[in-house]
Amino acid sequence: MAINIVLVEPEIPQNTGNIARTCALTNSTLHLVKPLGFSVDDKHLKRAGLDYWHLVDIHYYENFDELINKHGDKDFYYATTKSKNIYTDVNYSDECFIVFGKETKGLPMELLERNWDKTIRIPMRTDIKRSLNLANSVNIILYEALRQLKFPNLG
Amino acid sequence: MAINIVLVEPEIPQNTGNIARTCALTNSTLHLVKPLGFSVDDKHLKRAGLDYWHLVDIHYYENFDELINKHGDKDFYYATTKSKNIYTDVNYSDECFIVFGKETKGLPMELLERNWDKTIRIPMRTDIKRSLNLANSVNIILYEALRQLKFPNLG
Repeated sequence: MAINIVLVEPEIPQNTGNIARTCALTNSTLHLVKPLGFSVDDKHLKRAGLDYWHLVDIHYYENFDELINKHGDKDFYYATTKSKNIYTDVNYSDECFIVFGKETKGLPMELLERNWDKTIRIPMRTDIKRSLNLANSVNIILYEALRQLKFPNLG
Repeated sequence: MAINIVLVEPEIPQNTGNIARTCALTNSTLHLVKPLGFSVDDKHLKRAGLDYWHLVDIHYYENFDELINKHGDKDFYYATTKSKNIYTDVNYSDECFIVFGKETKGLPMELLERNWDKTIRIPMRTDIKRSLNLANSVNIILYEALRQLKFPNLG
Protein backbone atom coordinates (compact mmCIF):
# COMPACT_ATOMS: atom_id res chain seq x y z
CA MET A 1 0.00 0.00 0.00
CA ALA A 2 1.42 3.31 -1.11
CA ILE A 3 0.31 6.57 -2.61
CA ASN A 4 1.90 7.41 -5.93
CA ILE A 5 3.21 10.90 -6.67
CA VAL A 6 3.80 11.76 -10.33
CA LEU A 7 5.90 14.75 -11.38
CA VAL A 8 5.58 15.55 -15.09
CA GLU A 9 8.70 17.27 -16.41
CA PRO A 10 9.84 18.85 -13.13
CA GLU A 11 12.30 21.69 -13.64
CA ILE A 12 13.82 22.63 -10.28
CA PRO A 13 15.99 19.99 -8.55
CA GLN A 14 15.42 21.34 -5.01
CA ASN A 15 11.68 20.77 -5.44
CA THR A 16 12.07 17.19 -6.63
CA GLY A 17 14.62 16.60 -3.87
CA ASN A 18 12.21 17.85 -1.23
CA ILE A 19 9.40 15.75 -2.69
CA ALA A 20 11.64 12.68 -2.74
CA ARG A 21 12.42 13.29 0.93
CA THR A 22 8.70 13.41 1.75
CA CYS A 23 8.09 10.25 -0.30
CA ALA A 24 10.82 8.45 1.63
CA LEU A 25 9.33 9.55 4.94
CA THR A 26 5.78 8.46 3.99
CA ASN A 27 6.48 5.25 2.03
CA SER A 28 5.08 6.92 -1.08
CA THR A 29 6.22 5.99 -4.58
CA LEU A 30 7.69 8.70 -6.82
CA HIS A 31 7.19 8.64 -10.61
CA LEU A 32 9.21 11.09 -12.72
CA VAL A 33 8.18 11.77 -16.32
CA LYS A 34 11.01 13.03 -18.57
CA PRO A 35 12.39 15.36 -19.69
CA LEU A 36 13.66 16.43 -16.26
CA GLY A 37 15.18 19.87 -15.80
CA PHE A 38 18.20 18.33 -14.05
CA SER A 39 20.15 15.10 -13.84
CA VAL A 40 19.56 12.87 -10.85
CA ASP A 41 23.21 13.14 -9.86
CA ASP A 42 23.06 16.92 -10.11
CA LYS A 43 24.82 18.56 -7.17
CA HIS A 44 21.72 20.62 -6.32
CA LEU A 45 19.55 17.54 -6.18
CA LYS A 46 22.14 15.92 -3.95
CA ARG A 47 22.09 18.91 -1.64
CA ALA A 48 18.27 19.02 -1.59
CA GLY A 49 17.59 15.35 -1.09
CA LEU A 50 19.91 12.81 -2.61
CA ASP A 51 20.73 11.52 0.84
CA TYR A 52 17.21 10.05 0.62
CA TRP A 53 17.35 8.94 -3.00
CA HIS A 54 18.18 5.30 -2.22
CA LEU A 55 15.29 5.16 0.27
CA VAL A 56 12.70 6.25 -2.29
CA ASP A 57 10.82 3.86 -4.56
CA ILE A 58 11.37 5.86 -7.74
CA HIS A 59 10.41 5.17 -11.36
CA TYR A 60 11.26 7.00 -14.58
CA TYR A 61 9.22 7.33 -17.79
CA GLU A 62 10.11 8.68 -21.21
CA ASN A 63 6.69 10.35 -21.47
CA PHE A 64 3.28 10.42 -19.79
CA ASP A 65 1.77 7.82 -22.16
CA GLU A 66 4.31 5.27 -20.93
CA LEU A 67 3.10 5.81 -17.36
CA ILE A 68 -0.57 5.54 -18.40
CA ASN A 69 0.12 2.35 -20.35
CA LYS A 70 1.59 0.84 -17.20
CA HIS A 71 -0.72 2.21 -14.48
CA GLY A 72 -3.80 3.58 -16.26
CA ASP A 73 -6.14 1.18 -14.44
CA LYS A 74 -5.53 2.98 -11.11
CA ASP A 75 -7.31 6.07 -9.73
CA PHE A 76 -5.69 9.23 -11.05
CA TYR A 77 -5.98 12.81 -9.78
CA TYR A 78 -4.53 15.84 -11.54
CA ALA A 79 -3.49 18.90 -9.50
CA THR A 80 -4.13 22.23 -11.18
CA THR A 81 -5.04 25.72 -10.03
CA LYS A 82 -7.68 25.68 -12.79
CA SER A 83 -9.84 22.93 -11.24
CA LYS A 84 -13.26 23.49 -9.68
CA ASN A 85 -12.78 20.57 -7.26
CA ILE A 86 -11.10 21.19 -3.91
CA TYR A 87 -8.48 18.57 -3.00
CA THR A 88 -10.11 17.83 0.37
CA ASP A 89 -13.43 16.83 -1.26
CA VAL A 90 -11.87 13.79 -2.96
CA ASN A 91 -11.79 10.30 -1.41
CA TYR A 92 -8.27 9.05 -2.08
CA SER A 93 -7.77 5.33 -2.63
CA ASP A 94 -4.72 3.69 -1.14
CA GLU A 95 -2.88 3.15 -4.42
CA CYS A 96 -4.01 6.26 -6.25
CA PHE A 97 -1.77 8.38 -8.48
CA ILE A 98 -1.62 12.14 -7.88
CA VAL A 99 -0.15 14.01 -10.85
CA PHE A 100 1.62 17.39 -10.76
CA GLY A 101 2.88 19.51 -13.66
CA LYS A 102 6.05 21.51 -14.12
CA GLU A 103 6.75 24.52 -11.91
CA THR A 104 6.39 27.20 -14.59
CA LYS A 105 3.37 25.92 -16.50
CA GLY A 106 1.55 23.19 -14.61
CA LEU A 107 0.04 20.27 -16.53
CA PRO A 108 -0.73 20.51 -20.29
CA MET A 109 -4.25 21.80 -20.95
CA GLU A 110 -5.11 18.91 -23.26
CA LEU A 111 -4.29 16.44 -20.48
CA LEU A 112 -6.48 18.39 -18.04
CA GLU A 113 -9.37 18.60 -20.53
CA ARG A 114 -9.35 14.82 -21.01
CA ASN A 115 -9.51 14.32 -17.21
CA TRP A 116 -11.51 17.34 -16.03
CA ASP A 117 -13.58 15.48 -13.40
CA LYS A 118 -10.37 14.10 -11.89
CA THR A 119 -8.69 17.48 -11.41
CA ILE A 120 -8.15 18.92 -7.93
CA ARG A 121 -7.19 22.35 -6.64
CA ILE A 122 -5.68 23.76 -3.44
CA PRO A 123 -7.63 26.84 -2.26
CA MET A 124 -5.53 30.00 -2.18
CA ARG A 125 -5.80 33.71 -2.91
CA THR A 126 -6.48 34.20 -6.59
CA ASP A 127 -5.56 37.89 -6.82
CA ILE A 128 -1.83 37.16 -6.69
CA LYS A 129 -0.43 36.02 -10.01
CA ARG A 130 1.50 33.13 -8.51
CA SER A 131 0.70 29.90 -6.76
CA LEU A 132 2.13 27.63 -4.09
CA ASN A 133 5.58 26.14 -4.50
CA LEU A 134 5.43 22.69 -6.18
CA ALA A 135 6.97 20.81 -3.25
CA ASN A 136 4.55 22.43 -0.82
CA SER A 137 1.59 21.59 -3.08
CA VAL A 138 2.65 17.94 -3.22
CA ASN A 139 3.07 17.80 0.55
CA ILE A 140 -0.33 19.40 1.22
CA ILE A 141 -2.25 17.02 -1.04
CA LEU A 142 -0.23 13.93 -0.10
CA TYR A 143 -0.79 14.52 3.61
CA GLU A 144 -4.55 15.04 3.04
CA ALA A 145 -4.62 11.64 1.31
CA LEU A 146 -2.59 10.10 4.15
CA ARG A 147 -4.92 11.70 6.73
CA GLN A 148 -7.92 10.10 5.02
CA LEU A 149 -6.13 6.73 5.00
CA LYS A 150 -5.23 7.14 8.71
CA PHE A 151 -1.48 7.54 8.15
CA PRO A 152 -0.77 3.91 7.21
CA ASN A 153 2.42 2.46 8.76
CA LEU A 154 3.64 5.90 9.85
CA GLY A 155 4.89 6.60 13.35
CA MET B 1 -9.35 36.29 10.82
CA ALA B 2 -5.96 34.76 10.13
CA ILE B 3 -3.83 31.89 11.23
CA ASN B 4 -0.48 32.86 12.71
CA ILE B 5 2.70 31.03 11.74
CA VAL B 6 5.69 31.50 14.06
CA LEU B 7 9.23 30.58 12.98
CA VAL B 8 11.70 30.57 15.88
CA GLU B 9 15.23 31.34 14.68
CA PRO B 10 14.84 30.03 11.11
CA GLU B 11 18.19 29.33 9.44
CA ILE B 12 17.61 28.74 5.73
CA PRO B 13 16.29 31.69 3.68
CA GLN B 14 14.66 29.55 0.98
CA ASN B 15 12.48 27.91 3.64
CA THR B 16 11.33 31.21 5.12
CA GLY B 17 10.79 32.55 1.59
CA ASN B 18 8.59 29.60 0.69
CA ILE B 19 6.67 29.93 3.94
CA ALA B 20 6.18 33.67 3.32
CA ARG B 21 4.80 32.82 -0.12
CA THR B 22 2.29 30.40 1.42
CA CYS B 23 1.33 32.98 4.07
CA ALA B 24 0.69 35.55 1.33
CA LEU B 25 -1.47 33.10 -0.61
CA THR B 26 -3.53 32.11 2.47
CA ASN B 27 -3.84 35.47 4.28
CA SER B 28 -1.84 34.02 7.16
CA THR B 29 0.33 36.17 9.41
CA LEU B 30 4.05 35.39 9.69
CA HIS B 31 5.96 35.98 12.95
CA LEU B 32 9.77 35.68 12.86
CA VAL B 33 11.70 35.34 16.13
CA LYS B 34 15.35 36.47 15.94
CA PRO B 35 18.14 35.69 15.47
CA LEU B 36 17.46 34.83 11.82
CA GLY B 37 20.04 32.88 9.82
CA PHE B 38 19.83 35.48 7.02
CA SER B 39 18.94 39.11 6.43
CA VAL B 40 15.54 39.88 4.94
CA ASP B 41 17.19 41.57 1.98
CA ASP B 42 19.44 38.57 1.45
CA LYS B 43 19.65 37.63 -2.22
CA HIS B 44 18.63 34.05 -1.50
CA LEU B 45 15.52 35.19 0.34
CA LYS B 46 14.71 37.45 -2.61
CA ARG B 47 15.08 34.55 -4.99
CA ALA B 48 12.97 32.26 -2.82
CA GLY B 49 10.16 34.62 -2.02
CA LEU B 50 10.88 38.30 -1.61
CA ASP B 51 8.58 39.05 -4.52
CA TYR B 52 5.85 38.21 -1.98
CA TRP B 53 7.39 39.96 0.99
CA HIS B 54 5.28 43.14 0.69
CA LEU B 55 2.11 41.02 0.47
CA VAL B 56 2.79 39.22 3.76
CA ASP B 57 1.69 40.51 7.15
CA ILE B 58 5.03 39.94 8.87
CA HIS B 59 6.22 40.75 12.39
CA TYR B 60 9.66 40.48 13.99
CA TYR B 61 10.57 39.75 17.62
CA GLU B 62 13.88 39.95 19.46
CA ASN B 63 13.07 36.72 21.32
CA PHE B 64 10.21 34.32 22.02
CA ASP B 65 9.25 36.01 25.30
CA GLU B 66 8.47 39.22 23.40
CA LEU B 67 6.00 37.31 21.24
CA ILE B 68 4.39 35.63 24.26
CA ASN B 69 4.09 38.96 26.07
CA LYS B 70 2.17 40.33 23.09
CA HIS B 71 0.07 37.31 22.03
CA GLY B 72 0.19 34.85 24.94
CA ASP B 73 -3.60 34.98 25.41
CA LYS B 74 -4.18 33.19 22.08
CA ASP B 75 -4.21 29.43 21.39
CA PHE B 76 -0.68 28.17 20.76
CA TYR B 77 0.46 24.91 19.17
CA TYR B 78 4.08 23.75 19.02
CA ALA B 79 5.22 21.51 16.17
CA THR B 80 7.78 18.87 17.11
CA THR B 81 8.62 15.36 16.00
CA LYS B 82 8.72 14.47 19.72
CA SER B 83 5.01 15.04 20.38
CA LYS B 84 2.50 12.27 21.06
CA ASN B 85 -0.36 14.33 19.53
CA ILE B 86 -1.02 14.08 15.80
CA TYR B 87 -1.61 17.45 14.11
CA THR B 88 -4.94 16.35 12.61
CA ASP B 89 -6.42 15.58 16.06
CA VAL B 90 -6.30 19.24 17.13
CA ASN B 91 -9.19 21.69 16.63
CA TYR B 92 -7.53 24.85 15.36
CA SER B 93 -9.08 28.20 16.31
CA ASP B 94 -9.18 30.92 13.69
CA GLU B 95 -6.53 33.13 15.27
CA CYS B 96 -4.29 30.43 16.69
CA PHE B 97 -0.50 30.54 16.65
CA ILE B 98 1.42 27.54 15.27
CA VAL B 99 5.08 27.56 16.30
CA PHE B 100 7.98 25.90 14.44
CA GLY B 101 11.63 25.62 15.50
CA LYS B 102 14.84 25.96 13.55
CA GLU B 103 15.68 23.52 10.77
CA THR B 104 18.59 21.79 12.46
CA LYS B 105 17.28 21.46 16.02
CA GLY B 106 13.56 22.15 16.23
CA LEU B 107 12.15 23.98 19.24
CA PRO B 108 14.08 24.16 22.54
CA MET B 109 13.23 21.27 24.87
CA GLU B 110 12.46 23.55 27.80
CA LEU B 111 9.82 25.36 25.70
CA LEU B 112 8.28 22.02 24.67
CA GLU B 113 8.27 20.74 28.26
CA ARG B 114 6.37 23.82 29.45
CA ASN B 115 3.75 23.30 26.70
CA TRP B 116 3.67 19.53 26.30
CA ASP B 117 -0.13 19.22 25.90
CA LYS B 118 -0.01 21.82 23.13
CA THR B 119 2.61 20.03 21.02
CA ILE B 120 1.70 18.44 17.68
CA ARG B 121 3.46 16.01 15.36
CA ILE B 122 3.23 15.08 11.67
CA PRO B 123 3.21 11.27 11.24
CA MET B 124 6.18 9.98 9.26
CA ARG B 125 8.61 7.07 9.17
CA THR B 126 10.67 7.09 12.32
CA ASP B 127 13.46 4.77 11.16
CA ILE B 128 15.07 7.48 9.02
CA LYS B 129 17.15 9.89 11.03
CA ARG B 130 15.70 12.98 9.36
CA SER B 131 12.33 14.68 9.16
CA LEU B 132 10.25 16.70 6.72
CA ASN B 133 11.57 19.96 5.33
CA LEU B 134 10.49 22.94 7.48
CA ALA B 135 8.54 24.67 4.69
CA ASN B 136 6.70 21.46 3.89
CA SER B 137 5.87 20.91 7.57
CA VAL B 138 4.43 24.42 7.86
CA ASN B 139 2.35 23.95 4.71
CA ILE B 140 0.98 20.58 5.85
CA ILE B 141 -0.14 21.84 9.25
CA LEU B 142 -1.36 25.24 8.01
CA TYR B 143 -3.52 23.63 5.32
CA GLU B 144 -4.99 21.18 7.87
CA ALA B 145 -5.97 24.19 10.00
CA LEU B 146 -7.41 25.95 6.92
CA ARG B 147 -9.32 22.79 5.95
CA GLN B 148 -10.93 22.68 9.41
CA LEU B 149 -11.84 26.37 9.09
CA LYS B 150 -13.29 25.76 5.59
CA PHE B 151 -10.62 27.74 3.72
CA PRO B 152 -11.77 31.20 4.82
CA ASN B 153 -11.70 33.85 2.06
CA LEU B 154 -9.67 31.61 -0.26
CA GLY B 155 -10.63 31.00 -3.89
